[in-house]
Amino acid sequence: MTLFTGLSAFPLTPVDMQGCLMPDMLVRHLDRLRAAGVDSIGLLGSTGSYAYLSHEERKRTVRVAADFLRGRTPLIVGVGSLRTDQAAELAKDAAAAGADGLLLAPMSYQPLTEEEVYLHFRTVAESGGLPLCIYNNPGTTKFTFSHNLIARLSQLPNVAAIKMPLPADGDFAGELAALRSTTSEGFSIGYSGDWGAREALLSGADCWFSVIAGLLPGPALALTRAACAGDGDRAAHIDQGFAKLWGLFRKHGSFRVMFVIANLLDQDTLMPLPPVMPLSGRAINEVQEALDQLCDA
Amino acid sequence: MTLFTGLSAFPLTPVDMQGCLMPDMLVRHLDRLRAAGVDSIGLLGSTGSYAYLSHEERKRTVRVAADFLRGRTPLIVGVGSLRTDQAAELAKDAAAAGADGLLLAPMSYQPLTEEEVYLHFRTVAESGGLPLCIYNNPGTTKFTFSHNLIARLSQLPNVAAIKMPLPADGDFAGELAALRSTTSEGFSIGYSGDWGAREALLSGADCWFSVIAGLLPGPALALTRAACAGDGDRAAHIDQGFAKLWGLFRKHGSFRVMFVIANLLDQDTLMPLPPVMPLSGRAINEVQEALDQLCDA
Repeated sequence: MTLFTGLSAFPLTPVDMQGCLMPDMLVRHLDRLRAAGVDSIGLLGSTGSYAYLSHEERKRTVRVAADFLRGRTPLIVGVGSLRTDQAAELAKDAAAAGADGLLLAPMSYQPLTEEEVYLHFRTVAESGGLPLCIYNNPGTTKFTFSHNLIARLSQLPNVAAIKMPLPADGDFAGELAALRSTTSEGFSIGYSGDWGAREALLSGADCWFSVIAGLLPGPALALTRAACAGDGDRAAHIDQGFAKLWGLFRKHGSFRVMFVIANLLDQDTLMPLPPVMPLSGRAINEVQEALDQLCDA
Repeated sequence: MTLFTGLSAFPLTPVDMQGCLMPDMLVRHLDRLRAAGVDSIGLLGSTGSYAYLSHEERKRTVRVAADFLRGRTPLIVGVGSLRTDQAAELAKDAAAAGADGLLLAPMSYQPLTEEEVYLHFRTVAESGGLPLCIYNNPGTTKFTFSHNLIARLSQLPNVAAIKMPLPADGDFAGELAALRSTTSEGFSIGYSGDWGAREALLSGADCWFSVIAGLLPGPALALTRAACAGDGDRAAHIDQGFAKLWGLFRKHGSFRVMFVIANLLDQDTLMPLPPVMPLSGRAINEVQEALDQLCDA
């Protein structure tokens, strides 16, 4: 099984209101994922607030995680930055600290051309020297990958996988077939957007890059194993337990909901960094109800 | 005349490939704007690469500019950041260094809610204590302001102006009337998107937030004065001279074209920071032709 296969769990990065890592809490989150047996951990993804943290704090986060995991669970690290030199430095540093793979989103301010993104990926992939997953997330980066660009990138050394957003038309099988026909042999294709994971995996996707697995690895693993085994009935049953939670993810953004789940699970008081605001009142009650539904399933 | 009126010129921030300010070159650019008599200088706007520079380098840029200008030309400073605490700190620092006003874009990674943007602006406007212009630029920030949010923000202390993108339907008069009817008395409404400046000013906009004026303040001032005086014929004549340049701004993005103009004007070798790539070959020739057309006009 390659690095970008199965269930990749994306934990929050616990930081205080100054954006400083709380290492003990990070280790607690990582230990839950390790113990559950997720296939990989996606540290410092969008859920892990990478875009909001200083580069020093991101490097520290990787060191703490790699020192704790010691290879027991493969560690994938998000190294996106608005600047190529800084993303390349983060990639080199993550590799030195013990990461197993990298995740790179084409963060943008000035809208980027395809050629600019191609050169950005080539530079960072070369600098890191580790298997790298293209992070295709137009909702946060504003960049939309064409199939042609994905095919070109898949030919680059170290570029081993892509994390796709859910297809707008819902046609996973068609999209997977189109991508497999143009990308290099062994190139891994996974999806994010937890509410589409069941269908993505049943349609033959290689990986679920999962937000919820960052806090609830157990049911996410059960869904992954059922869908990867082609057991549509069991996958549908487990997915049904998540239905209310998926609705809240879509309504509030999974990022904001994850902080509520963390605080309900662990009696913490984790909050996103402003301007992103914590959910309150009624929304918290709805998240609790969604978790109850999940436990009942 | 208030701070956000007339022609606001947005210079490049000259930095080397490590993102370090080249102060002598910045002063040369600023002196050209001062000598031409622009109404204000918009330092560290999108054209000034604010999103790509370290906070230390941004603070240094403001100090160099304020020390050089010494109040001779009003100085507006872009203080956008993905984090509220950092934008507030940049605002406080810009005020301490001698800025006259602030420009704040709601940079985003996680898509922001209206309430999040409202609180972000309230915090930064309070921290800066200077007249602040809302930087409404969905193309780079991914956030779209509703008229209702603009009206609410205009009631906040220090929030004095908005820099609007060109209306999609081209109806400047309708948009200005709608905004004036809901924003506070004296709230200034200006536009960016240089190819729409003529019509915006003729329609009664208060300010042209101009990219090209960062390097060619003379013809931009002539256009501004003609349009603000209601001389449509003269404004159209001057604007016609810019026609080829506006086409290149729209084709390549004004940011990339400005580096070419700087190098053609001053025999420099300024480049954007990767991943943004410099234009080359044929595009450079086209920019030279556009400048020739401008000089002939």
